[in-house]
Amino acid sequence: MRSDLLMPGAFLSPLVLQDSVHRALDEDLGRAGDITSAITIPEGKRAKAKLAARKAGVVAGLACAAEAFRLLDPSVKFSSKIRDGAQIKAGEVAAEIEGSAAAILSGERVALDFVTHLSGIATLTAAFVSKVAHTSAKIACTRKTIPGLRALEKYAVRCGGGNNHRFGLDDAVLIKDNHIAVAGGIANALKSVREKIGHLVKVEIEVDSLEQLAEVLKAGGADAVLLDNMDLGKLKTSVGLAKGKVILEASGGVTLDTVAKIAETGVDIISSGALTHSAPALDFGLDIQI
Amino acid sequence: MRSDLLMPGAFLSPLVLQDSVHRALDEDLGRAGDITSAITIPEGKRAKAKLAARKAGVVAGLACAAEAFRLLDPSVKFSSKIRDGAQIKAGEVAAEIEGSAAAILSGERVALDFVTHLSGIATLTAAFVSKVAHTSAKIACTRKTIPGLRALEKYAVRCGGGNNHRFGLDDAVLIKDNHIAVAGGIANALKSVREKIGHLVKVEIEVDSLEQLAEVLKAGGADAVLLDNMDLGKLKTSVGLAKGKVILEASGGVTLDTVAKIAETGVDIISSGALTHSAPALDFGLDIQI
Amino acid sequence: MRSDLLMPGAFLSPLVLQDSVHRALDEDLGRAGDITSAITIPEGKRAKAKLAARKAGVVAGLACAAEAFRLLDPSVKFSSKIRDGAQIKAGEVAAEIEGSAAAILSGERVALDFVTHLSGIATLTAAFVSKVAHTSAKIACTRKTIPGLRALEKYAVRCGGGNNHRFGLDDAVLIKDNHIAVAGGIANALKSVREKIGHLVKVEIEVDSLEQLAEVLKAGGADAVLLDNMDLGKLKTSVGLAKGKVILEASGGVTLDTVAKIAETGVDIISSGALTHSAPALDFGLDIQI
Amino acid sequence: MRSDLLMPGAFLSPLVLQDSVHRALDEDLGRAGDITSAITIPEGKRAKAKLAARKAGVVAGLACAAEAFRLLDPSVKFSSKIRDGAQIKAGEVAAEIEGSAAAILSGERVALDFVTHLSGIATLTAAFVSKVAHTSAKIACTRKTIPGLRALEKYAVRCGGGNNHRFGLDDAVLIKDNHIAVAGGIANALKSVREKIGHLVKVEIEVDSLEQLAEVLKAGGADAVLLDNMDLGKLKTSVGLAKGKVILEASGGVTLDTVAKIAETGVDIISSGALTHSAPALDFGLDIQI
Amino acid sequence: MRSDLLMPGAFLSPLVLQDSVHRALDEDLGRAGDITSAITIPEGKRAKAKLAARKAGVVAGLACAAEAFRLLDPSVKFSSKIRDGAQIKAGEVAAEIEGSAAAILSGERVALDFVTHLSGIATLTAAFVSKVAHTSAKIACTRKTIPGLRALEKYAVRCGGGNNHRFGLDDAVLIKDNHIAVAGGIANALKSVREKIGHLVKVEIEVDSLEQLAEVLKAGGADAVLLDNMDLGKLKTSVGLAKGKVILEASGGVTLDTVAKIAETGVDIISSGALTHSAPALDFGLDIQI
Amino acid sequence: MRSDLLMPGAFLSPLVLQDSVHRALDEDLGRAGDITSAITIPEGKRAKAKLAARKAGVVAGLACAAEAFRLLDPSVKFSSKIRDGAQIKAGEVAAEIEGSAAAILSGERVALDFVTHLSGIATLTAAFVSKVAHTSAKIACTRKTIPGLRALEKYAVRCGGGNNHRFGLDDAVLIKDNHIAVAGGIANALKSVREKIGHLVKVEIEVDSLEQLAEVLKAGGADAVLLDNMDLGKLKTSVGLAKGKVILEASGGVTLDTVAKIAETGVDIISSGALTHSAPALDFGLDIQI
Repeated sequence: MRSDLLMPGAFLSPLVLQDSVHRALDEDLGRAGDITSAITIPEGKRAKAKLAARKAGVVAGLACAAEAFRLLDPSVKFSSKIRDGAQIKAGEVAAEIEGSAAAILSGERVALDFVTHLSGIATLTAAFVSKVAHTSAKIACTRKTIPGLRALEKYAVRCGGGNNHRFGLDDAVLIKDNHIAVAGGIANALKSVREKIGHLVKVEIEVDSLEQLAEVLKAGGADAVLLDNMDLGKLKTSVGLAKGKVILEASGGVTLDTVAKIAETGVDIISSGALTHSAPALDFGLDIQI
Repeated sequence: MRSDLLMPGAFLSPLVLQDSVHRALDEDLGRAGDITSAITIPEGKRAKAKLAARKAGVVAGLACAAEAFRLLDPSVKFSSKIRDGAQIKAGEVAAEIEGSAAAILSGERVALDFVTHLSGIATLTAAFVSKVAHTSAKIACTRKTIPGLRALEKYAVRCGGGNNHRFGLDDAVLIKDNHIAVAGGIANALKSVREKIGHLVKVEIEVDSLEQLAEVLKAGGADAVLLDNMDLGKLKTSVGLAKGKVILEASGGVTLDTVAKIAETGVDIISSGALTHSAPALDFGLDIQI
Repeated sequence: MRSDLLMPGAFLSPLVLQDSVHRALDEDLGRAGDITSAITIPEGKRAKAKLAARKAGVVAGLACAAEAFRLLDPSVKFSSKIRDGAQIKAGEVAAEIEGSAAAILSGERVALDFVTHLSGIATLTAAFVSKVAHTSAKIACTRKTIPGLRALEKYAVRCGGGNNHRFGLDDAVLIKDNHIAVAGGIANALKSVREKIGHLVKVEIEVDSLEQLAEVLKAGGADAVLLDNMDLGKLKTSVGLAKGKVILEASGGVTLDTVAKIAETGVDIISSGALTHSAPALDFGLDIQI
Repeated sequence: MRSDLLMPGAFLSPLVLQDSVHRALDEDLGRAGDITSAITIPEGKRAKAKLAARKAGVVAGLACAAEAFRLLDPSVKFSSKIRDGAQIKAGEVAAEIEGSAAAILSGERVALDFVTHLSGIATLTAAFVSKVAHTSAKIACTRKTIPGLRALEKYAVRCGGGNNHRFGLDDAVLIKDNHIAVAGGIANALKSVREKIGHLVKVEIEVDSLEQLAEVLKAGGADAVLLDNMDLGKLKTSVGLAKGKVILEASGGVTLDTVAKIAETGVDIISSGALTHSAPALDFGLDIQI
Repeated sequence: MRSDLLMPGAFLSPLVLQDSVHRALDEDLGRAGDITSAITIPEGKRAKAKLAARKAGVVAGLACAAEAFRLLDPSVKFSSKIRDGAQIKAGEVAAEIEGSAAAILSGERVALDFVTHLSGIATLTAAFVSKVAHTSAKIACTRKTIPGLRALEKYAVRCGGGNNHRFGLDDAVLIKDNHIAVAGGIANALKSVREKIGHLVKVEIEVDSLEQLAEVLKAGGADAVLLDNMDLGKLKTSVGLAKGKVILEASGGVTLDTVAKIAETGVDIISSGALTHSAPALDFGLDIQI
Repeated sequence: MRSDLLMPGAFLSPLVLQDSVHRALDEDLGRAGDITSAITIPEGKRAKAKLAARKAGVVAGLACAAEAFRLLDPSVKFSSKIRDGAQIKAGEVAAEIEGSAAAILSGERVALDFVTHLSGIATLTAAFVSKVAHTSAKIACTRKTIPGLRALEKYAVRCGGGNNHRFGLDDAVLIKDNHIAVAGGIANALKSVREKIGHLVKVEIEVDSLEQLAEVLKAGGADAVLLDNMDLGKLKTSVGLAKGKVILEASGGVTLDTVAKIAETGVDIISSGALTHSAPALDFGLDIQI
């Protein structure tokens, strides 16, 4: 894997990236491989290609593209002109590829499918981030990701300037309404979590009223509170009550139109599932010269 | 796998579905599993839940949701109230789930991630389909899918009333501009494909001008022609030239606003990558009673 | 994978080839690896070897052999003297191998098992092909393959000059007697398939009488017809009725003795499961000089 | 896995069988599954089927067939009428299957591909075994197996009454000419093997002359000797020299015509790669009533 | 997987447990399976067995044992008499197993290998925990685990009353000396981590002097401090400086003899790699009645 | 894989080693990878490191360490100063590593976890071997291994000078009390095994009395006898009765204190599960200079 193509400071296992690209290529090649190129492209034919953005946005996924071509032909040269996490203009070239024409044609779709999807997420994230730039709020993703691509999508969110929430059910505690109900209330739930959880695991709890927030603060033991679907008034009151004592995360109904107002309430984190589950692809194309 | 939860006539390998859900659950559970539920949910606690649409749309992916819960607890009952491929109203219940509270809470996110993503694709597809209902044109997806989920996404397109294009590089021939260039022109490309390809493989060729279309018709050997980025005028002329001789597919720049006009030109198929690469999730929630 | 060792125009996913060879090598090495060579072959010992045919035939599988040695020692040199798909004489050298003696001895059996099996299929296929060379009929394989090796076996058939039938249940429609019975007759079956299937999927239907063939022609919608177990007379009549309208495939009881007569009836395709399920291995040996 | 369908005393890991069938089914279903049945077979349609031999032979692989159907529909009933390892007549029913019509149609080919291939091996083995029934010689297979199916093929050899040679490079020592050459002669090779190998690993050594056999006997340390390509005279002399001291295995150029004479020389084991690499399939069919 | 056999509140993905047991069984069965039982145990033979401790300790791993038998025969009954996490006496029965004699004999070793290894870890952990019971210190494991078994070993530590440290490199930050050096000192390292890390990720930093501890406290941003190889005096001073401000973890050279004194310094957490990398197995046996 | 780092004459499949290291690295990296190094280590930063023993012992596992670094960065140089199987002193450097600082820091734990575990086994084995050096007895491991690591642990035993017992249930016969009971006694069990087992499979039988040993000798057909839990007197008598006729293996209650006396009875093999299930890790550290 070409770690030099990742955004510096990437949170992403290289083994996960490799496995995802291998799996996607296997899915596209099927049993017989690229039958069109097998027939029409003479062996040994070389090609050059430019991977270019068709629309402006934020780039993510170049290492996936490089890995797709590498799996088909280790001698393909993949030279990036830009780095994951950077703004790209419409028409700007993100990378130049040179090598076997057959490998480039056969890997084209998988390479583009990664780059367009991940850049789409990075671009949407960057739009949210820019809306709150005048505040100290951070934009975060959720676990509402496309099944099987979570780590890559979380990486794309960071390329767009966003932050990551939990990567899974196992790396932080998030106590929701049902957990509270069964555990016998907020205080009991927090107490029992603090007793049993490891010392390097953070605890967040979801509340939907100011009363619940007050209970959380009184009980102690929470690192963060998820303020679920609160209106701006309640968010402001929450900030007044709890800012600096716990991390305050606003969630629910966050859109590009509403996010600035939410950020201005003073919450620390604003999370949105839409960053990963509904980001439209950012259009890229591969211009090939054979 | 619950094949009774799939749309009747589904094109989808049950092994692919099982593998995808297993992989997604593994991704979410990580090493330590659902640590929040492990602490707060007493063993043996039972729960009921309703999987309900938050917005209107077309359902797809119920079998994935059922499989996620089954992997966590084979005794969970998953009773569908609607079938993949059907219209669902905002607030309508798609399925009722009953079983171990821990299994339901731990499987919730993965179940929803599949249902919201696939229903999003089905819903967008249905919107396109309804725009062309007054014509004989069919809406088709492309290979521009989220890496690793192609077969499930193609299934979702059919749930929305759409048709499937190639599933991969290996199940049909699609001759593009680069193939034509290297092969020495349209006639040569088609000739060489016809000689070498199996008798059960269809051949499509991409053209971007009426001259190229004429060449294809003259050369013979193509089952379908992809009319790439043609305006309405050229599409109509193409239909006049070739309708009934080859299948005519329009592609490029297709949107909900333009698709009806394109369909009215008389083309047989209209394909759009947006169906799979840019469909926003359809919101569903799990209402749990413990 | 050494794509330069494959027959030009190969229909074969390189990932499938790699996975198959890895799996076979793992099967042979087991847990402890090659214990005989571990004890008797000094580290660093080099060897040369010639991979030679013991009998005349058609070569297939050299890339598998190279991959087996490469997995054991990436520095092994594998120089082919002939290409997959070519005729080889008894005693002729197909490739020279040079590298670690231990790697060559440990990889020998797996390398040979691929080459002898796939060359056996290519050789048998070539025998059928040569019997029909005076006609326009093509020889095709079926889905009667050795479980787990289908893509490689289909590739070997093409090395022998044959054509490929479906690679699986998903890449073409083949309507058989049971499907017809349940669907309410030939016309209904074809109609319902044409309505529901993608525009890049071909449709074949199996008939065992001239009456059924007539029904198919009348109904339309079939790209090909499989004439199942018809005698030469019926085949000729079928050709008279349908040649040029649909692709005509003869199947059932095809042997090296009967295939020429079948081809002379004018059918387009003659398919035989024996090409893949009953081809004897073509003997090859590895002559090693340490 | 249905262990009751295996030959009693089967040497076969159930996990290997399950994995092989899963892999083969995945190979056949591809991404879209059985598209023909998806369209033509109504949901809930039930069917009965008889798995019957088209030719006489020895059955092997019924558990694979059952596993294929089970993976598609766990409620399919698979009732065997005969056991792996038994003789079956042409036309005789090996098993009756009842369940979902779609599952039976979709699993048919994979089920048959296992049964016909493995029964082919069992049948050929039984033919060799019967030729030597008047002697005490046993028929054994080799490592010349179809890549990926070794354990199942070795099982099939036992179904036919044969014995198993090594399953891989790791479960017994077999010293060949190249090992001897590098190790500095037979005595050195045997000495070094005996010193280093575990006490539960047998040691066989290949010789091609009576002189070498004498050397082996003198050196000691071999459990078995492979008499490579010796004529009947040399085999008899070898038996005279070594019978009862080491196990004597004859190998090379063994055919149904020559095997009896070889056995009559008094050797203990006669091994043939052809049992596994060149056994023609034994024809079976599935007669389905929907 | 039998979650009812796990310690209540287990932190363990059921998919990880299933995969580990499947892998271990596959490793033991190899290609040919349990050849001894295949020959000597008649089909259909039933057996009962008692899984009993040979020495006193803490039980862990019963669900692994049950899974091993289930994979070989789903009808095996596995009735536990005790729960993971409980003390067991020498000779006490942990579970009774009833089912196919062959399945019980074939699964015995794998079942025992899990139970003895994991119970060994739980027992050693419990010994450490009991040494510090008079203090508020908690015992924690590290990432020094047996490769491939981390999640199960971490689970066993909790069965013994211990706490879990990081499960991997990705679920918490631990800044060590090399990180500090490269990042330009403690304050810079903490600042840059706090800016870039997600809000649900805890940050620990390793220090080996009181000066460094003071720097950490001044810089802020650390949730926990790992006091590396400090003597009792320094540990006490550290507690005086930092208790209640950050979590204090003592590490290095912790043994059963020294752990009580370390705990009495007032540190919050004492971690030891020996819990997982050097715990001797706790002896269990399977008493089988056929 | 670096086979030059393995002990010469290693019994170990390179594919097993690669798979084990990949799996362990994946386990440690999780989804987000090494988040601490991602933040604190600048891209392109190089480092040198020394892998040094903290205690004296026998080295095993250097190739695993090298593979861990290689998977993270193929350009890392791993130069060994000692070979697996050699004695190492406390403080002695086993290998020097040079390359990307991030790769070295991220791979450190996995590399050490393999080396410390396997060297621990090698070291304990060497201690047993040295206790019996004045006799001809050999020390052997058992199948009591850590699940998933058997082949590597068996390799480590050999690095320590020990011998390997069975690698699994499939590579040798070991008839235990339950097998004897069901098979109708020792003579019947041995007879039936000899008839059915392959000619390259050894047969061992467990006895716990001199009477049983006599029965075995009378019956014939056993290559080895496992003398289970016999006291020194019975062991001596057994040697008197059977030495030279069968291989005699003593097992049960073998410790470093008792093993010399057991060896002096004249038995051929002394086996101990403790070598693999209870060997404490041998401490190694990685001294990194960035």
